[in-house]
Amino acid sequence: MRSVITSICIVLCSILQIAAQSVSSPDGQIQLSFSITDLGQPQYSVLYKSNPIIKESKLGFRVKNKKGFDNGMTIVSSDVKSNDTTWIPVWGENDSIRDNYNEMLIHLKNKEANTLINIRFRVYNDGVGFRYEFPVQKAKKLIIADELSEFAMSGDMTAWWIPGDYDTQEYEYTKSRLSEIRMFDNGHMQNVAQTGFSSTGVQTSLMLKTDDGIYLNIHEAALVDFPAMHLNLDDTNFVFKSWLTPNINNDKAEIVTPFSTPWRAIMISDKATDILSSNLILNLNDPCKIIDTSWIKPIKYMGVWWEMITGKSTWSYCDAENFDLATFDYANAIPHGRHGANNENVKHYIDFASENGFDQLLIEGWNIGWEDWFGKEKEFVFDFITPYPDFDIKALNDYAHSKGIRLMMHHETSASLRNYERWIDRAYDLMNEYGYTSVKSGYVGKFQPRGENHYNQNSVNHYLSCITKAAEKKIMVNGHEAVRPTGLCRTYPNLIGNESAMGTEYQNMKPGHVAILPFTRLKGGPMDFTPGIFRMDFSSFAPGNTEHKRATIANQLALYVTMYSPLQMAADMPEHYSEKSDAFQFIKDVPVDWSRSIYLDAEPGEYIVVARKDKNNANWYVGGVTDSNARYYELNCDFLDEDSLYEATLYMDGITAHYDKNPESYIITSFEISNLDIIPVRMAPGGGFAVSIKKK
Amino acid sequence: MRSVITSICIVLCSILQIAAQSVSSPDGQIQLSFSITDLGQPQYSVLYKSNPIIKESKLGFRVKNKKGFDNGMTIVSSDVKSNDTTWIPVWGENDSIRDNYNEMLIHLKNKEANTLINIRFRVYNDGVGFRYEFPVQKAKKLIIADELSEFAMSGDMTAWWIPGDYDTQEYEYTKSRLSEIRMFDNGHMQNVAQTGFSSTGVQTSLMLKTDDGIYLNIHEAALVDFPAMHLNLDDTNFVFKSWLTPNINNDKAEIVTPFSTPWRAIMISDKATDILSSNLILNLNDPCKIIDTSWIKPIKYMGVWWEMITGKSTWSYCDAENFDLATFDYANAIPHGRHGANNENVKHYIDFASENGFDQLLIEGWNIGWEDWFGKEKEFVFDFITPYPDFDIKALNDYAHSKGIRLMMHHETSASLRNYERWIDRAYDLMNEYGYTSVKSGYVGKFQPRGENHYNQNSVNHYLSCITKAAEKKIMVNGHEAVRPTGLCRTYPNLIGNESAMGTEYQNMKPGHVAILPFTRLKGGPMDFTPGIFRMDFSSFAPGNTEHKRATIANQLALYVTMYSPLQMAADMPEHYSEKSDAFQFIKDVPVDWSRSIYLDAEPGEYIVVARKDKNNANWYVGGVTDSNARYYELNCDFLDEDSLYEATLYMDGITAHYDKNPESYIITSFEISNLDIIPVRMAPGGGFAVSIKKK
Repeated sequence: MRSVITSICIVLCSILQIAAQSVSSPDGQIQLSFSITDLGQPQYSVLYKSNPIIKESKLGFRVKNKKGFDNGMTIVSSDVKSNDTTWIPVWGENDSIRDNYNEMLIHLKNKEANTLINIRFRVYNDGVGFRYEFPVQKAKKLIIADELSEFAMSGDMTAWWIPGDYDTQEYEYTKSRLSEIRMFDNGHMQNVAQTGFSSTGVQTSLMLKTDDGIYLNIHEAALVDFPAMHLNLDDTNFVFKSWLTPNINNDKAEIVTPFSTPWRAIMISDKATDILSSNLILNLNDPCKIIDTSWIKPIKYMGVWWEMITGKSTWSYCDAENFDLATFDYANAIPHGRHGANNENVKHYIDFASENGFDQLLIEGWNIGWEDWFGKEKEFVFDFITPYPDFDIKALNDYAHSKGIRLMMHHETSASLRNYERWIDRAYDLMNEYGYTSVKSGYVGKFQPRGENHYNQNSVNHYLSCITKAAEKKIMVNGHEAVRPTGLCRTYPNLIGNESAMGTEYQNMKPGHVAILPFTRLKGGPMDFTPGIFRMDFSSFAPGNTEHKRATIANQLALYVTMYSPLQMAADMPEHYSEKSDAFQFIKDVPVDWSRSIYLDAEPGEYIVVARKDKNNANWYVGGVTDSNARYYELNCDFLDEDSLYEATLYMDGITAHYDKNPESYIITSFEISNLDIIPVRMAPGGGFAVSIKKK
Repeated sequence: MRSVITSICIVLCSILQIAAQSVSSPDGQIQLSFSITDLGQPQYSVLYKSNPIIKESKLGFRVKNKKGFDNGMTIVSSDVKSNDTTWIPVWGENDSIRDNYNEMLIHLKNKEANTLINIRFRVYNDGVGFRYEFPVQKAKKLIIADELSEFAMSGDMTAWWIPGDYDTQEYEYTKSRLSEIRMFDNGHMQNVAQTGFSSTGVQTSLMLKTDDGIYLNIHEAALVDFPAMHLNLDDTNFVFKSWLTPNINNDKAEIVTPFSTPWRAIMISDKATDILSSNLILNLNDPCKIIDTSWIKPIKYMGVWWEMITGKSTWSYCDAENFDLATFDYANAIPHGRHGANNENVKHYIDFASENGFDQLLIEGWNIGWEDWFGKEKEFVFDFITPYPDFDIKALNDYAHSKGIRLMMHHETSASLRNYERWIDRAYDLMNEYGYTSVKSGYVGKFQPRGENHYNQNSVNHYLSCITKAAEKKIMVNGHEAVRPTGLCRTYPNLIGNESAMGTEYQNMKPGHVAILPFTRLKGGPMDFTPGIFRMDFSSFAPGNTEHKRATIANQLALYVTMYSPLQMAADMPEHYSEKSDAFQFIKDVPVDWSRSIYLDAEPGEYIVVARKDKNNANWYVGGVTDSNARYYELNCDFLDEDSLYEATLYMDGITAHYDKNPESYIITSFEISNLDIIPVRMAPGGGFAVSIKKK
């Protein structure tokens, strides 16, 4: 492990040999140039290894009723500095992260309009970032009508994308050339809340690959008090333009100077694995703002959840509809007998989770309101504090604590924002009262109030307000259906997870999905993907459910390594783990916090292999996943300590394993290895492999 | 299974459209041409797919004190015929064999010398064969001084060869270009009886591959009353010339007309697997001469053998040396206590072999003389009828029979031919008396009488005399250190096996050995290779033996399929099988007789994969072996019946398995398959895989 070096050096331009209006990465491979067009519009371009990778791309804003943020600008001055520091994350893929960049800050002014705007560029070895900074100026409040930032690509290339949408990222990815994106318009699955905006609109992080084999990834970092940025493609010229999520007035953002926008970031490398290991997004976020982080702990958990997702049981307690939650008489309601979160069932889960070393147990459907929630667009849908009659919140929490685990709170808001904000203080207080330390929040469905959406400035501010409020109460937040993460977990590490993509609740995603998410969704922060499904045929336990999981057991195990998260669920039910206790051992063993991660091999949407070292000991874990193609992989163990012996246990696909035809076939084998060994393994279609490597 | 068609058609040249002095294979791909040189010497050449594969090659003989068999010849006449028959082997790789060829018989005469010789050519789809036929003529007895047959290769090419030797084939193979053969002279391991003759001499069957990817194999068929043929290379012109093994007078052969020589055969294909599946050698042999073959049964056996080979116990009973076997007093000798073939130990083996379904149990060292045998060149070395005092031949045979198995006799002759011939009638009678049905004979060491060798005409006649005599007494013969087989097992199917190559007794052969033997040694007939070693570190049970087996467990299992033989030994000791009873199951399951064999993929000395169908049911077995390189293989199961389900059990190399470093690591996994499935498998260095596929 590299020792932590904290050395900040701010050096003048002349010493750094950075040319004015141009700044290079510390290794010199990436060069960003800034200039002003004839019309006075700022623009930038990027070279990678001397080749144009981002062509001349416009910068600036259109501001409502105010000229001067788009053109007519001149450079007042420019500052450069360099940074090479190392910071320690509370949890993460690595136990320290180097933050090494050269920076160029351009001060711009439109003399005629008397407007000021600064653009701060940071160039790292793994990419570039820039943000706009509005200094204090005459116009204090600005209504952003449009962000003009462009990403002018070097030509037609391959993209792995999901359609631009103001309300959901829960799409499967499409791989196509940029010139083909429009062809897939309306070709995507329907979801309960979808708001597309353009047939060439896509979301970030957007994974790209040039025909020359250069991997690019466009995303944003530190999305605070601003709408989420989509990208809209000019598919003739291959220019992406920032497309901010509008608010209820169809404006984009309302800001008060001084104000800094989120960072726009472009990861760049000729190695796919560099994209996966890039810390660009985290580095562009502010350092941790929580002083005492001792209460923030990675979590391995189970949940009373999958049985409702699959239809074996329900969130609801009784049959009812169209009622007023304030007056509905649950005490005298007739239970329908299928309620999952009942005392007996929860105790059964507590016993199993405790016996198998889990930290927490999520209980969904514990609170009143579930009979009348989904798709009802009802404002007072939940109160977040009243348990169902058959859920003894005190007794169950006490029982869990006596068994060494904690229950995980669940706050499904049904996207009724105002309602949640009304209750959130009492809801968090209830958590403190009964000893909950984490909450899974949800924002399923169309937003309340009407006209709002999931990703606009108002919603973004809501999510962050929950996180900061939770931090005050030492609560960790796992936000589902919230805005896509942008590295804010560095600043607020109690944001322990997000969903913000299609996770396991989509029961039958195509196999390649898990090989693209780490390139896209995970670049912003960990995902509560909820892997670990062991019984693939749902009809076997949930009559009438004709879906089945399109993944192998070994693939499901690998996800605990390939899908980095400090929050990992074992999503299946105790009985399904009991019947495959040998494979379950990997889930029991695998840690949720790491001292080092090495992405060994990858191609977006096709396969990923990563090795990670346990933060608390010298053991390693390796995971590999593939798409619908079988693959052979030779795992070179040269990352292990020299002159040491390890006991490796390999969890691999059965010989005839196949995500559709034979998903539950697996083989487990143990053997001794050293750093000189190569472990050959085959991943079945939709399969993968997992290895625990324990030092002897 | 193809029904048996027996239709012999002899058709005149004009109908067959075979040009005079030229004959093609039934499929037209191979064309053999015959002509006479200006000096009147016969010659032939072969085209394969219209390309020269054997250039003009001389034919004929030098006969001692007699001219006229080498040149000065004219064609008297030529006959052509065609054959398309199918014959049923008593045992074999397939339950019927098609014998389809076009034949050209050239009648030659040297008018001046008044000598006659005919040359019979047969051209099959898989190669060509020719033999010389000496009609009755004035000179009745001929002493062959030299055979002039040539195989003029089309250029320098790759050969897999062992050095020419009059006494042994127990060499590892060398892969080299023809032009490099001389470089390896004296580079081969030393053996107890070796008699080389030329630095470019090699043995048959000789495997070759042209730079164009044409596989060739030169061997002989039906070696009867003639010396074994070696090949000597003119490595400037790449012409092989027949080199007959000389007799004690340094002549080559003594023949009495009418006489037919063995066939000289050349297998030809652009697919390596065609060489493996070629029945050319069997087809060139005469049909079965044993009328009642009902007593000839394939044999799966164990043996009190490996423990002596490895040094855990001994063949000998006491410590003695330089004694006369006729007078040595075994009854009063002091046993040294390490004799393997003692009553108690043999009973232990009988119990284990019986419990595990074996047919027979070989007992070596059962008879007196072993104290004074090896390397002593003693004429009266064994009597083949007197057991050691601690070997109760009656009681042990009775015990074996009561357990449903038979003991296998062992006749080590120590290459003392005259002695063996003196005793053989009594020895075979003893076998009949106690119910033995098979004998393993051995010819270790330098030949007695001095000056004889293992492969000359006299020795060849000896071996066959043993086989025919055994047939009269319904005894199956497994001849070790005898002359290399040439397909005589078709004619005498009681020749149930031979050694005639390096087998398992060479404890640490290089891994590729088992991937070349089926291309070479096995073309003449089955080999008693004695696979199935499960404990690779010999020092663990035989103190002081620092050798270890250089193969993996899965490789050892695969050999039961890749090394075809109707006689298969499980060579290791009961305790080593007991400790790996799961892997041992394959040896218990695998049959020793087949209805169909399909060579799926192969490259000489590198890898072989073959599928075989049990002769007695619908189950299949697949074996694959590799050299020191790991290989991935995808086993396409399309050879299975359509619309049928099978239970496959795959025995594969462990993840870190390696023939040297980790030979005992294996994985066994079972799964259901159909003919639509592909089984992916990895073979470790020096490894392999075996699959049993049982119809449901």
